[in-house]
Amino acid sequence: EKLKDEADAKKKKPEFKINGRVHLDNWNFLDSDAGINFLESGNPVDDPENRWDFRRIRLEIAGTVPGNMLYRIQIDFNNPSSAEMKDVYLGFNNLPNNQTFLIGNQKRPIGLDHLNSSRHNVFAERPLAVETFNEDARRLGACMYGHNDSESINWRYGGFLLENISTDGRYRGDFHEAGLYGRLAASPWYDEISGGRGYYHCAVAGSFNAVDGDGTTDLDQNSNESRFRTRPLARSDSRWWDTGRILGANNYEQLAFESMLNIGALQITGEYISTWLQRDAVGGFNGEDLHFHGGYIFANYYLTGEHVPLDRTSGTIDRVKPFENFFLVDRCNGGRGRGMGALSLGLRADYLDLSDSDIRGGDGYALTAGANWYWTAYSKVQANLITGEINNAGQGRSAVPLAAGVDGDFSILGFRYMIDF
Amino acid sequence: EKLKDEADAKKKKPEFKINGRVHLDNWNFLDSDAGINFLESGNPVDDPENRWDFRRIRLEIAGTVPGNMLYRIQIDFNNPSSAEMKDVYLGFNNLPNNQTFLIGNQKRPIGLDHLNSSRHNVFAERPLAVETFNEDARRLGACMYGHNDSESINWRYGGFLLENISTDGRYRGDFHEAGLYGRLAASPWYDEISGGRGYYHCAVAGSFNAVDGDGTTDLDQNSNESRFRTRPLARSDSRWWDTGRILGANNYEQLAFESMLNIGALQITGEYISTWLQRDAVGGFNGEDLHFHGGYIFANYYLTGEHVPLDRTSGTIDRVKPFENFFLVDRCNGGRGRGMGALSLGLRADYLDLSDSDIRGGDGYALTAGANWYWTAYSKVQANLITGEINNAGQGRSAVPLAAGVDGDFSILGFRYMIDF
Amino acid sequence: EKLKDEADAKKKKPEFKINGRVHLDNWNFLDSDAGINFLESGNPVDDPENRWDFRRIRLEIAGTVPGNMLYRIQIDFNNPSSAEMKDVYLGFNNLPNNQTFLIGNQKRPIGLDHLNSSRHNVFAERPLAVETFNEDARRLGACMYGHNDSESINWRYGGFLLENISTDGRYRGDFHEAGLYGRLAASPWYDEISGGRGYYHCAVAGSFNAVDGDGTTDLDQNSNESRFRTRPLARSDSRWWDTGRILGANNYEQLAFESMLNIGALQITGEYISTWLQRDAVGGFNGEDLHFHGGYIFANYYLTGEHVPLDRTSGTIDRVKPFENFFLVDRCNGGRGRGMGALSLGLRADYLDLSDSDIRGGDGYALTAGANWYWTAYSKVQANLITGEINNAGQGRSAVPLAAGVDGDFSILGFRYMIDF
Repeated sequence: EKLKDEADAKKKKPEFKINGRVHLDNWNFLDSDAGINFLESGNPVDDPENRWDFRRIRLEIAGTVPGNMLYRIQIDFNNPSSAEMKDVYLGFNNLPNNQTFLIGNQKRPIGLDHLNSSRHNVFAERPLAVETFNEDARRLGACMYGHNDSESINWRYGGFLLENISTDGRYRGDFHEAGLYGRLAASPWYDEISGGRGYYHCAVAGSFNAVDGDGTTDLDQNSNESRFRTRPLARSDSRWWDTGRILGANNYEQLAFESMLNIGALQITGEYISTWLQRDAVGGFNGEDLHFHGGYIFANYYLTGEHVPLDRTSGTIDRVKPFENFFLVDRCNGGRGRGMGALSLGLRADYLDLSDSDIRGGDGYALTAGANWYWTAYSKVQANLITGEINNAGQGRSAVPLAAGVDGDFSILGFRYMIDF
Repeated sequence: EKLKDEADAKKKKPEFKINGRVHLDNWNFLDSDAGINFLESGNPVDDPENRWDFRRIRLEIAGTVPGNMLYRIQIDFNNPSSAEMKDVYLGFNNLPNNQTFLIGNQKRPIGLDHLNSSRHNVFAERPLAVETFNEDARRLGACMYGHNDSESINWRYGGFLLENISTDGRYRGDFHEAGLYGRLAASPWYDEISGGRGYYHCAVAGSFNAVDGDGTTDLDQNSNESRFRTRPLARSDSRWWDTGRILGANNYEQLAFESMLNIGALQITGEYISTWLQRDAVGGFNGEDLHFHGGYIFANYYLTGEHVPLDRTSGTIDRVKPFENFFLVDRCNGGRGRGMGALSLGLRADYLDLSDSDIRGGDGYALTAGANWYWTAYSKVQANLITGEINNAGQGRSAVPLAAGVDGDFSILGFRYMIDF
Repeated sequence: EKLKDEADAKKKKPEFKINGRVHLDNWNFLDSDAGINFLESGNPVDDPENRWDFRRIRLEIAGTVPGNMLYRIQIDFNNPSSAEMKDVYLGFNNLPNNQTFLIGNQKRPIGLDHLNSSRHNVFAERPLAVETFNEDARRLGACMYGHNDSESINWRYGGFLLENISTDGRYRGDFHEAGLYGRLAASPWYDEISGGRGYYHCAVAGSFNAVDGDGTTDLDQNSNESRFRTRPLARSDSRWWDTGRILGANNYEQLAFESMLNIGALQITGEYISTWLQRDAVGGFNGEDLHFHGGYIFANYYLTGEHVPLDRTSGTIDRVKPFENFFLVDRCNGGRGRGMGALSLGLRADYLDLSDSDIRGGDGYALTAGANWYWTAYSKVQANLITGEINNAGQGRSAVPLAAGVDGDFSILGFRYMIDF
């Protein structure tokens, strides 16, 4: 029978499925101080521009080839003349202990909100700390994914190069800037009877990274990857929190905690991430060890009663299915049909401190009020109102130590129109 | 039953279909005066280069998600290292009154020839006036599409941002350069008995637009979108008719008329479009209101007897199906099979006047003799011989008022090899 | 019946299939002399950078339209922000004498190793002579492909433009730099009984080319396409063998011979290619006719007993199917299943001489030891260890005649992780 199975497998052809998503953003910078203007444009009187962006125009082809292997190619055309790769990998599935091993461009396992798909997250942009300490998430690496048979525990661990190759597909350099990453997640409470409307998920993750602190001052082509930065929870031109590339950096380590409690229509989620960095004194910087950290907590509630499902095998959230779609149609029998869709409201508090010793990367917080109006399980509109404050920032616009940091307040209103298939 | 329908709908998965097209062009600039050489290259002795271009290498994925929503992603790789987006939208169909509402990058409803697909148009490039007054047609906007139950009337109306974001996918700027657009089309005569071989289509369309006449002279990132320009019905490097970005422009309005009469194998089509622009006196320009206008008329005849079908729900032309495909094959029984395909001949007269007051955008005409040899319903070769004259042009190469315009004659021969699927 | 067939054909819709491949490379430059460093970076002390590259992220859509026509669109996203076209064509199949005629971007028929798919070749990169004398292989052209009924003979012949338009999709220039190409291949011995485990393939190919030897020194936009160059069998930044664009070139002619003997698991393959170029004395160069040439021979053996199949209709190699896939899975019945995949070892000797008269393009050789570990018929990992020597090189970094050439030795170790579907 074993032989027969394999003979059958050999006869099979590769298989594929096609998916995609369109996310269209409208961001309005309602209010910004001179300090914020400087962080955005370098000019204190040039405020952030309002904008309409295709945030994602993503096509994906994924599938299997006969003999327990799989592949995925995901290209994002949000900027059509300069496309980006997202997941691009090949690998083995059905390995012992429910494991899958992937080689290629894939997400580093730091930050629940980054591991969640952008299709499913309840706020438009990812939290300050999650985006800062795992910028753009995906890197070239090799990673093992697995879970136990009861699905109560799942894990990921692997090695990744640190340079982001999403636009050019190539890592060049004699110094291998790389890190070891791991994440262990559990869902100790999961209410099977209600179909998963109640659960508690928690996880711990960490990394060890070696960086090339002299960057492009030597002959190797490595850029110094010890840089931590993020936009203000909206699609600004510049990153307002930004340490710059930290000269003289040798290594950094990360530790991250996740907690997600779901009780029916209500979810309360928080994460906290710390990064410790060791460096030498170079270029006028004092060489002291650095500690950056941040986190967030949010509550989200479905007025229409739906819930956010948990995928227990990966430790991430899954697609929300409205009880009723939004629609307005003429019925065959003459009447007019209406549906309202689903509605959720949420509030998130973000904190991020990238200022330590003589590095003034920014220390601040933000509050985000968010609403999701689900038209269908595959489409929705998001509204996010963000207000925040940043202090002691500006390192990202300077190659030398700053005498003083830049401060400023901001408020931003954004809308995202989303469909995926 | 209603509940059952919706229950079924919820079980359904998103669906997609894939389409595409390849258009390969060969353009030969047979003859050009010194004035034309200047408009093309800036150098009166450097004549336009002959060329082979992939005009379109377009892939499209479109479909529906459960709950009367739809999406479309269309990317053109004619310049593979710098792709463009075409239609990229999401929306609702089956709305009351046979309506569909789309949000995203889509065609503005000005000019029949632009609303027709490039797969179906009988001349290789679009008429001077249609391309000038609706350059590249697609913009980011929200538009409603509908028709009455008898399909004798159809309409489109919506709002669009004026900047063309096809290459970068993003609109940046604190000034919302935008317009309101509408088109009402009718087919008062449509001969059902002959399967639509006889019909008359007419339409009126218009727009109101607000533009940022100071362009990049202030801090906002808006470019001044009051610019009207077009190539000479062929793929030259430069636009020979070109008003440049009209400094001090505030608003412009458009009015367009369409007429298409089809009697069996013969079709006679014409359009006329006017644009009125209001401006302030800035930068040496006199600030007088401007009127630009143009139109075309063509006759096209199928020697092999086919006809151009009308899509009455959208007010555009549809795919021509040859009575016999072109082929040359060995038969199983030893003989050799031959088919000739379909053949049409057409003649188009174009007129366009972009010179008014102190703006010398060019005033001229062109004659196009065109032949279409259909290999199959999905493939054909087009030949276009164009001869024309342009006077009082050159504004597009100058930021200040010109003392005198540039004149010139030209003739161009082009071939296009086309397939779509 | 003929009429019925055609009526059926007309009812049919276009069809498509989707394919793709991911090739991920890791190249390590183990050793390089100062001369090699200069050829790579222009700086004798800046050695080649180690690297991880996505070598290919290719998506393909191909199919037919009703009425014996076909199309293919192949885009490579290995550098996502700057994609390339590969095959992009339309054409006719089922022509008399088993012929297919294609118009568009397609491979020029010089060099067996270039006509073989990168999915199937046994060494990671193509031989020096094959890549040099048919750089990147694909050009815009029209080509006929056919074979006799017994499949013992096949042929290709056509005309091609010489400029590589893979990144911009457009050929511009009043001078048509073009060539006529042909290849005649035969498989006089093919052992049907063993399913093609034994065969002998041989072929002769040639070309006549006209080039624009004044390049961009005149007003036409043609680049001088008389340039022959290649990387060192690995993905270096620069081409180490490089004649530069040969000033004053008028024409060049090519002659190529192929021989491939397969006896079960063993294959012995060799090719030899000559190029003769005629030129005028311009810019300090002496104008003497030039002769460049090179070739290779390799032996490859499957330790696990598989063989490389021959596609007799195209004269190229086909997909290797491992007797057993590589896998490690838990069985339902509790045991653990293992498979080893297939393994081949090969050795290739390359020779290339691009130094003649006053052109110092490089004269050298390389040895490549290669291993292929096939995980499945659709995936494998390749390891290549390359060592070589180059003399009298450097013309590619100079626009004037060199007083002396550059010499150097090198060794390189590379790995490629591959999947296709």
